[in-house]
Formats: sequence, C-alpha cells, structure tokens
Amino acid sequence: MPIVVQKYGGSSLADAESIKRVARRIADTKKTGNDVVVAVSAMGDTTDELLDLAQEVSPVPPPRELDMLMTAGERISMALVAMAISDLGYSARSFTGSQAGVITDGVHGKAKIIDVTPGRITEALGKGHIVIVAGFQGVSQGTKEITTLGRGGTDTTAVALAAALRADVCEIYTDVDGVFTADPRIVPSARKIERITNEEMLELAASGSKVLHLRSVEYARRFDIPIHVRSSFSQKTGTIVTDQPGPEGDAVEAPIIAGVAHDRSEAKVTVVGVPDRTGMAAQIFEAVTLAQINIDMIVQNVSATDTGLTDISFTLPKADGPAAVESLQRIQDEVGFTAIQYDDQIGKLSLVGAGMRSNPGVSATFFKALANAGVNIEMISTSEIRISVITRDDLLDDAVRAVHTAFGLDSSEGEAVVYGGTGR
Amino acid sequence: MPIVVQKYGGSSLADAESIKRVARRIADTKKTGNDVVVAVSAMGDTTDELLDLAQEVSPVPPPRELDMLMTAGERISMALVAMAISDLGYSARSFTGSQAGVITDGVHGKAKIIDVTPGRITEALGKGHIVIVAGFQGVSQGTKEITTLGRGGTDTTAVALAAALRADVCEIYTDVDGVFTADPRIVPSARKIERITNEEMLELAASGSKVLHLRSVEYARRFDIPIHVRSSFSQKTGTIVTDQPGPEGDAVEAPIIAGVAHDRSEAKVTVVGVPDRTGMAAQIFEAVTLAQINIDMIVQNVSATDTGLTDISFTLPKADGPAAVESLQRIQDEVGFTAIQYDDQIGKLSLVGAGMRSNPGVSATFFKALANAGVNIEMISTSEIRISVITRDDLLDDAVRAVHTAFGLDSSEGEAVVYGGTGR
Repeated sequence: MPIVVQKYGGSSLADAESIKRVARRIADTKKTGNDVVVAVSAMGDTTDELLDLAQEVSPVPPPRELDMLMTAGERISMALVAMAISDLGYSARSFTGSQAGVITDGVHGKAKIIDVTPGRITEALGKGHIVIVAGFQGVSQGTKEITTLGRGGTDTTAVALAAALRADVCEIYTDVDGVFTADPRIVPSARKIERITNEEMLELAASGSKVLHLRSVEYARRFDIPIHVRSSFSQKTGTIVTDQPGPEGDAVEAPIIAGVAHDRSEAKVTVVGVPDRTGMAAQIFEAVTLAQINIDMIVQNVSATDTGLTDISFTLPKADGPAAVESLQRIQDEVGFTAIQYDDQIGKLSLVGAGMRSNPGVSATFFKALANAGVNIEMISTSEIRISVITRDDLLDDAVRAVHTAFGLDSSEGEAVVYGGTGR
Repeated sequence: MPIVVQKYGGSSLADAESIKRVARRIADTKKTGNDVVVAVSAMGDTTDELLDLAQEVSPVPPPRELDMLMTAGERISMALVAMAISDLGYSARSFTGSQAGVITDGVHGKAKIIDVTPGRITEALGKGHIVIVAGFQGVSQGTKEITTLGRGGTDTTAVALAAALRADVCEIYTDVDGVFTADPRIVPSARKIERITNEEMLELAASGSKVLHLRSVEYARRFDIPIHVRSSFSQKTGTIVTDQPGPEGDAVEAPIIAGVAHDRSEAKVTVVGVPDRTGMAAQIFEAVTLAQINIDMIVQNVSATDTGLTDISFTLPKADGPAAVESLQRIQDEVGFTAIQYDDQIGKLSLVGAGMRSNPGVSATFFKALANAGVNIEMISTSEIRISVITRDDLLDDAVRAVHTAFGLDSSEGEAVVYGGTGR
C-alpha cells in the first residue's frame, strides 16, 4: 500500500472545527487506499502561549525545560486529531516524537534529526491504524532527553518520517495554496508555482520564503522525497518540490526564474576603518562566529590606497545583533578598527531560478529593474541560481514588485509555464 | 541526605505567581539539607479544559488518546516549576511519568502503578538536582503506552515515588490545612486532625473525604510511608497520616473518633418483589457486576412470610446508575422481580475511628444523635472502625453536624486530643 505522509501546521489546527476538518481530509486519504502518517504542529497560538508562560516564571528558562514545555503543544494536538479521526470510524494512534523514533542530537531548542527508527509506526500501520506523530520534537541519542527542532520543525519531522518510511509523497498542508513566485501580500499578482526543484526551493527558503522550513527541504533533497505544499482549506493541487521528472517529461521548457523572495529579518553590521593587513578579516569573523552567530552576506570594500584602511560589512539575524556588536567591541583594541555601525533598517531581495545558469542576461535585467524603480543596492551576493541584494527596508516592497514584473512572473502577463524538465 | 517527596495539586499551581511560590517552598526544602522530589498536577483548570477540547472533537474519545491528551497538562506544569526553581538559582530537572519510571498496567484512564524504577531520578538527585515529576501518569508495562491513574492520581504518584526512593516523608500540599474532623464547609467548628492512622484515613477517603486519593493511602500503608497533608498557602503543620508512633510515644491517649465523612456521589437502587429463593440475590449482583459497576452498601429486607417476596437495595456511584438499571431490566423476566426503583436523592454519612473497636458505646451515641436531629436512617453498614448510614440528601448536613457535636469533635468543646498511640 502506498504511504502518504502529511503535515498540518498550527493554522490548520486552530480549534476543534479545524481539527475535525483536518481529520476528514486524513480519513479521505486513508479511504482512497493509502497508509497515512501525519505530523502535527501545536494548535494555533499554543506555542506562543506556552512561551509567554515560561517568560512569566523565568526570564531565561533553561533550554532543557523549555523543550519539555513546548513539546506539550504537539502532544495536545496529536491526541485531538487522533480522537477526531476515530470519531469518523477510522482507528488512529498518536505517538510522541520519542515514541515515533525521532532521534536527535542534544542541542535543546534547535536539535537536528540524526536518525528515525519508526518501528512503532510501521507496526501500527500494519494493524491498519492511521498514525499521528507529534511534530517539532524528538529524543536525544544516548541521553534520552526531550528535544525540539526549532520553529517550523514539524516540516522536517514530516519529511524525515517520509524518508524513513520510504513514503511516496510528503504533503505539507498550510494556509496558502502553495509556493508563490513572490509573497502575495506584497505582490498581489504573484503566481502559484506548479513545480520547483529542491535546489530552487532551498534557495527560496534560505532567502526568506516561509512556506517550508529550510531543513525540511535539505532533508527531502538528500533522501529524494517529493514534497507537495498545499492548502488545508481547499482541494487544489499545490506546489510540487522535487528533482524527479514531471508528468510531461523533459519536453516542456522550464521557466528561467522560479520566484522572488524577500527577508526583513536581517541587520547589517559594518566594521569601519579596519587596518588592511592579512588576517584582520579572519580575526573579526572568528570573534563573531565564536558567539554562535550565523553570518549571511559579507562585503569588504577595496582599501583606499592613501589610508591603508578598509571597511567590512556583513548581515546577520537581527536577534543576533547585540551579541555580535558586543563580541566585536571586545576585539576592537586588538584589531585596531575605528568603529562599529549597526543598521537594522535593511531588507534583502533574492531572485531564484535554476534557469539563470544558462541565461547570462538575467543579472542585467535584474539590476535594470531595480535601477528603474529607484532602488539603491547596498550589498550583493550570488550563487549559481540566485542573486541577492540588500536595499533600504522601506524600498524593499517596491523592489520585489519591480523584479517580479521584469521577469514576467505576474499572473496577468501570460500563462504560468509548467515546469517539467529534469535538465535544470 | 534525607529524601523528601512533595506533591502539589492544581490549585497550588493555578498561575505563574502560584508556581513561583511553590518553587520557593521547594527551594527552601532543598536548602535545609534535603534531596527533593516533587510530583505535580496540571495547572488549575487545565485538566477540565483539555477534557472540554476532547468533547468538542469526539463525544466518546478513545481512552488511549484521552490519556495522551491529559498527560500534556502535567508536562506543562512540571516544566514551569523546574524553570521557576532554576530562576531561584537551584538546578531542577523535570521528568515525565515514563521517564521517571512509573510503570503501570494498561488500563487507560485508571491505570494502577505496578512498579517504579527511578533510575533517572536517583541519578539526577546524585548530581544535586531537584527532581520534578509529572504526576497522574505512567507508562504501561510491555506495551509502553502512556497511561493515567485517574483523578487525584498525583497523590499516588507522590507516594509511589516516596516508596521507591525510601523517602523520609511524603508531603501532600493542598489548598486546606490538612485532614479535618469533618468538611469545614458543612461543619465550621471542624478541627484539623494532627495525626491519623492509615486505616482511619483509608476509611475516611473511601467514605467521601476528598483530601487524599484513596489509592495513595493504600500505597502509603503497604510501604509504610508517612504522609504529611498540609497547605501550600501557609507554613502550618498539617495532618500526619502514619501508623508509626508519634513524638509523644504511646503515653498520650488517642481520640476514639477520627472524624465524620459524608458523600453525595451515590444513588440507591431497590429491586422490589424478588422471589425469596436461593441464588436470586446472586443473579442480581452478577448482572450489575458484569456491567463493571462497584456496589457499595447492600441491604436485603427480611422476607414477608405471606408473600414469599423480598426487596434488595444497594448503593452505587450516581454515574453508574443508568448502566445498573439497564442491566437489571435485562434480567427482570428471568428473575421475576416486580420493579426497579432508582433514587439519587440520598446522602451517606460515615463515622470513622479506630477507638470504636474497644468502645461499645459508640453506636448508641451515634444513633441517638441522629434520632435527636430528626434524621431517618435508610441503610446501615459497618466495618470494625466505621459506621455508615444512608439518609435523605437534604438531611445530610444536619446529620453530619449532629454527629460531629455528639462525639465532642467541635473545636469549641475542648482542645484537640493529640494522637500518639501505636496500639490502635
């Protein structure tokens, strides 16, 4: 029997009515002849409410206990979903992450899945049950502590289960119809993407698209699991994320550009007046890295020949800003730079498409679109299938719309090109 | 180092402020040189809220999934208590029932503890941590399913942990000052009992006193664990439940009567016109027992010689009333009785005291008090240390007050007699 893994997020499980609707969908999937395994998030705002409670009793709660607390949210929703399914006449069994065999490392709050040993799941499927698994959580190898995978982790739970069970597809249910060419709240003419490669989805997720958890895409890519991102509020087909050939084979031409992503979660740090000597940049980034901060883009200005000084700018998550500035202040005298500037009024725009590899004109069109829209570019970084720029925060929406239009992605500008190629 | 086990109920953990107060009390116990293990219930009304949610998605939720759901409540409170303790500068580790080694049978909703394997608890104590355990829950032997112990089960968790850890005392914190000679809401002059034997406490708990879960007293008696019932809202000494000699040794005389309990949770079923032949009663009670109903008191009237018919009355939990009536109706033709009467307007009053064994005057005083108060007695049952009667529901409060006064239990009628004997 084919195995379908489904994931339902908190917005699809907001209240008893939503849970019943989700249960009907799960039962329908079972009825059409599939074994069904479901990963669920906590209901609606449960996670935020639990975080608030934690804050009330302790400003800096120990990570181990915070994980204990947070995992209760999924335990509640999984049991309720199982009850709602059984009320429809199907048998369902819920399992905690630990019971489901989701083995992680021991990093509380952002644990990584090391292995999945789904013995209890396959046993339950063999008995004809529908299986509901608490998402977002696991148990640490060896120490057997309860861990969580970080925000959005239930996507990863679902894909990891799909990989371990050799499922035919992993369906990620959310409150939008799929992955769009841009955020529809900013670009009303954005189009739903029919098919997208793992590589492109990875770049979109890393560039600010919030539809899929980055780690879940990495996991799906590694284990070659097709993901179907779709709405739990409709029956429409959503977006297929896969490197496998589509139903049309290789014949249909793929679009050059998959979509435009934007990100307002980063800030920019500029270290001013760094002596232009070997090892200075290394010293700066070592200090920041030691503070466990993930740096995104980096730009080092060409040294002005008359001063022997240079400026180094980098972007990082806003939440890590204070820690980064503090760690830099500690090495200021040693390195001998002039000043640290911190700027959180920036936005990042990224254009993603596997087709840009073989289309050298992409960057020219991209920069012309931004120039015509009056958007000044502060930093640039590129990968083989992505161009990202940093702009002023208040120009970001205009920039996204200008680029979206320039690449013919607006839904009014022609029909959606169905991607069906494997050659990308 | 002495080990103290504490239990905090939902009313002591109603909100963040209550949790912080409980955390301070736990930290103080640690500070005075004890290893501390704490069993916690779900916060305030959490259990009822989760039950409501379950009802919304399924009128008859599967017991396994209901247990999965309910256990989330204790997981939330245990993590919050651990956080609040760590905020005071002490290290705390929380464990689910399963992690704490609470092994039960597989009866969802009212599982019995079979064994406690507290390896992780002793390891954590050895490292100097305060241990917080989710009450009310365990994991079934063999099948490893999450189970719950039924309402009030956290008392039993605490006593079972105390037994497994050979703790010096098990402190049950609640919202009253201890066990009283009667319910203070009905008898304002009721006195707090200083010391009470396990046997008396068992009879009180079985007769409607709600301060301690019946099963926890059975457990404490079997493993000889002293229980200290006290308020989490004050520093007062509460009630010590133990068969061990008190600080005064055997010299002080124990009171004859421990207290008066009442119970409004039962109903009375009368089977009218039963043919007075051998085996008729057996057939009736077999039918009721097969419906998994616990019968409390039974009275069979003497057969009227002219008719050859008799009446049989018994009491049972009100919740089981419909099932009992239904099971009797099924055997009515076969047994040939005339009618079934169902009466839920009854109350039960119980007088409990180990001293009545050697004081034959107790029952005379008891019945005289009831007669003087104008209370008609419908059924009577006795044990060696208890007399129980069934009265009309609306006379129950008067009856309790009359009996309480007749045995000199009112606090104004002389000082409390401290129990210190072992001979009882």
